Amino acid sequence: LAIILFTKTRIQLKAEIITIGDEILIGQVVDTNSAWLATELNKLGVEVVQITSVSDNRNAIIEGIDRAIERAGLVITTGGLGPTSDDITKTTLAEYFDTQLILNQQVAGTISTMLALRGVVMNERNLKQAELPEACEILPNSAGTAQGMWFSKNGSHLVSLPGVPFEMKTIFSDELKPRILDRFHLPFIRHITLLTHGGAESEIAIQIREWEEDLPKTIRLAYLPSPGLLRLRLSGRTEGNVQELEQLMEKEKQKLETLLRDYVFGYNDDKLEEIVGRLLAEKGQTLSLAESCTGGYIASLIASVPGCSAYFNGGVIAYSNESKSRELDVSPYTLMINGSVSQPVAEQMAHGCRMRFQTDFALAVTGIAGPSGGTEEKPVGTTWIAVADKHMTYSKSFRFGDNRGRNIQKSAMAALFMLRKTIMNCQ
Amino acid sequence: LAIILFTKTRIQLKAEIITIGDEILIGQVVDTNSAWLATELNKLGVEVVQITSVSDNRNAIIEGIDRAIERAGLVITTGGLGPTSDDITKTTLAEYFDTQLILNQQVAGTISTMLALRGVVMNERNLKQAELPEACEILPNSAGTAQGMWFSKNGSHLVSLPGVPFEMKTIFSDELKPRILDRFHLPFIRHITLLTHGGAESEIAIQIREWEEDLPKTIRLAYLPSPGLLRLRLSGRTEGNVQELEQLMEKEKQKLETLLRDYVFGYNDDKLEEIVGRLLAEKGQTLSLAESCTGGYIASLIASVPGCSAYFNGGVIAYSNESKSRELDVSPYTLMINGSVSQPVAEQMAHGCRMRFQTDFALAVTGIAGPSGGTEEKPVGTTWIAVADKHMTYSKSFRFGDNRGRNIQKSAMAALFMLRKTIMNCQ
Repeated sequence: LAIILFTKTRIQLKAEIITIGDEILIGQVVDTNSAWLATELNKLGVEVVQITSVSDNRNAIIEGIDRAIERAGLVITTGGLGPTSDDITKTTLAEYFDTQLILNQQVAGTISTMLALRGVVMNERNLKQAELPEACEILPNSAGTAQGMWFSKNGSHLVSLPGVPFEMKTIFSDELKPRILDRFHLPFIRHITLLTHGGAESEIAIQIREWEEDLPKTIRLAYLPSPGLLRLRLSGRTEGNVQELEQLMEKEKQKLETLLRDYVFGYNDDKLEEIVGRLLAEKGQTLSLAESCTGGYIASLIASVPGCSAYFNGGVIAYSNESKSRELDVSPYTLMINGSVSQPVAEQMAHGCRMRFQTDFALAVTGIAGPSGGTEEKPVGTTWIAVADKHMTYSKSFRFGDNRGRNIQKSAMAALFMLRKTIMNCQ
Repeated sequence: LAIILFTKTRIQLKAEIITIGDEILIGQVVDTNSAWLATELNKLGVEVVQITSVSDNRNAIIEGIDRAIERAGLVITTGGLGPTSDDITKTTLAEYFDTQLILNQQVAGTISTMLALRGVVMNERNLKQAELPEACEILPNSAGTAQGMWFSKNGSHLVSLPGVPFEMKTIFSDELKPRILDRFHLPFIRHITLLTHGGAESEIAIQIREWEEDLPKTIRLAYLPSPGLLRLRLSGRTEGNVQELEQLMEKEKQKLETLLRDYVFGYNDDKLEEIVGRLLAEKGQTLSLAESCTGGYIASLIASVPGCSAYFNGGVIAYSNESKSRELDVSPYTLMINGSVSQPVAEQMAHGCRMRFQTDFALAVTGIAGPSGGTEEKPVGTTWIAVADKHMTYSKSFRFGDNRGRNIQKSAMAALFMLRKTIMNCQ
C-alpha cells in the first residue's frame, strides 16, 4: 500500500470529476453521478472546478486525468469498474500509477460472501473484481463487487469509484467522505437558494439590481430558471470565520426575500410537493386527488414525500368518462354537454373526490395532454384545474404547449401552486 | 458576418460539448442537455469525444474551448446566455473570436414581438439579448430570447446554444441540425440496444463470451446495468457502406438475442411502460391500477405513453385502509386480520379494481416504502404485488431496500414485469 502523508494546513482544495463510459458520450445515460458528487463535495468545502466525461478508452482516460491533475488536487473518477471487457478503468489506472493488479484475498472473500447471500455462486468474472492495484488504498464497497480505490502521486490524489449510482454513493458516504474530512483542512462554502414563482427572470433582475450591485464580494448571486420557477442562489465562501459568513448571507437573503416577497415560495432543495405536504401536516389537514390527463403524476409527487400518509388519503385516476362518473360522481349530463375538459367537469371532479375521500382539500385536473385529442376550440395543452375546500371550489384554465410530457409536468406544477395558495388562504 | 467555407469531403467529425454554468459544478442542476445533444449528434454520425462542464468564469470557458478545439472540429456550448449579470458566455465568445457585440435590430424586433405575444413589455435586459457578436452566424431561437451563434476560425467551428433545455432543443432541431448535415459529409454510426431482465451482468457475460470474442472489429459491445435491468449495446461505425454495416449488426443482434432468449424484453429506447402499452393495444385489452405504496407512480408511467387512453381506464390510489375498502372493495376483516401489506389485500385490491373499472387486467401494489412504518415481521421494503386477469389473480412478495424512492421505482418495475408476463401468457 502507498504511504499517504497529509498536512493539516488550511488549503483550498479544488476537485474535478471524470465520468468514464461510452454510454454517456452517446447520450444513452444521463450523468446524475456528477451532480450528486458535486453537491456532496461542495458541502465539505471542496470546490469542483470541472466535470469531464470521457469514453472507455485508455488514451482518453489518461489525457483526462493528466489535465485534471494540473488543475485540481483531488480527482474523482466514476465508472468503468464493472466485471466486463469494456470496463478498462482499473487496468488504465494501474498503468497510470505504475503498479500491478494483484488478487486481494480479503476482498475476494467479501465478494464471495456477498454473492452467497444473494444466492449467487462466485464465477471468474466476479473474482476479477478482487484483482486490485497494489499501490492504492482500497475503499470497500458494501453495496456491490467493484471496490473504490485511492491513488496518490506527487501530492495529487485520485479516487476511482464505480459508476452504479447506489454503489458510488455508498462508498462516498461510508469511506471517502470521512477520509477527505480527516486528510484535508477545508474552507467553508455555503449556499442559500430562494425559490420563486410568478416573476420573469428579466423583471426580477431589474427589481433586485440595486441590491445585487451592493452585494459583498464574498457572496455571488446566480439565476437558475427552470419551467414554472426561477431559483436565485447566493453562494458564499470563506477561509476565515464561517459564522460571520453565515450571518452575512442570512442578512442578504432577508433583504432579497423582502424585495421578492410576492414570489418566494421555498428555499434550497425544497420541492413544491414537500412544501404543500408541510402546510397540510402543520394544519392537520388532508388531501385527495382526482387526475385525468396527469394520470397519477401529481399523486406520485405527493406520495414521494416521506410521511405523506399523515395527510394524503389517496385519489382516483379517471382516464375514461365512465370512471369520472362512477368514481367521482361527475354528472354524465355535464360530461355530455361540456366535454370532459371543461370547467364544470373539473369542479365536479374536485368536489366529488373531496366528498368520496372525506378530505379537507381535493385537487382535480382534466386536460388534453396530447399529442392527439385536440380540437380547434380546445387545442392540445388545454387544461382545467380545480381545487375544492370546505367552503367552495375554485377553478382555472391553462393553455400549455403541444408536448405531452411537458404538459403533464406544467399541469402538475400549476395545480400544486393553486393548491398551496388555497391551503394558505383557507381559514 | 463571417464567410464560412465548407468542403464536401467525407470527414470524421469529432465534436465536444461544453456546458457552462456554476449550477452544474455545485450539483444544483443535473446536466440533461449533454445527453440529449450527444444522442442527436450520434444519430447524425458525429462522434462526441468529450463532454466538459465549466463554471461561469471567463478563464475556465476560454481554457475549455482551447482544449476542446484541439480535439474536435465542432464544439457546442450550452448555457450562460441569459439576460442576467452571471451570464458571461456571449461576451467571452466575442472576446475569444476577436469581435464586438452590436445591437441586431432584426433580432430586437423579433424579441419584442415574442414578448408582446406573452403580454410582456420589452425592458433593457431583454434588449441586451439582441446585442450579438458581429462575426458570427445567428441561429434564431423561436422559443425564447437567447439566440444561437455559430463561430468559425481556422477550420474549427463553435456553436453556442442557450442552457434552457427546451430552447436549446428548438435551436438544435430547427437551425443547427440542417446546417451540420449540409456543411459536413459524415460517416455512419449505428447503435442497437437489447434490454434484458432477470440475468446478472457477470452471468450474462459468461454466457455470451464466445460470441463476444468473435465480434467483427467494426462492432463494439457495451454492458449498461441499471436497477432491475441490463442493457447490451452494439455500436457500429463505417465510412463506407452503411447497408452492409446495418446488415452485419442485425445479424449479430439476432445471434445475441438467441443466446439471451429468456432475458430480452425490448430494444433501444423502449420503456417497460411502452412495451406493456403496446402489448395491450395489440391485443385490444384494457388495464386499471390499484396503488398503495407506489402512490400513482405506476399510473404516471402508463399515462406518460401517448395514446394510452386506448387501453388505460384509470385506477385508484388507495393510501388509507378506508379507501382500500371503499374504492376497491377490500374486506375490512381481511385488512384487520392480515394488515394492509399482505397477500390477500393485494389480491383483493387487484380483483376489486378489475371489477370496478371493468378492465381485462388490473395491477395492484401494497407495500411499506419507508422510511418509517416497518416492523420486525414486515420490514421497510416489504411489498406485495398482484395481477388480476379474467381467469385468476396472481401475487408475489418482494423485499426491496430501505430507500423510499428506490422502493417505489423497484416496485413499479417489478409490477410492470409481472403484468407483461401475465398479458403475454393470457389466452
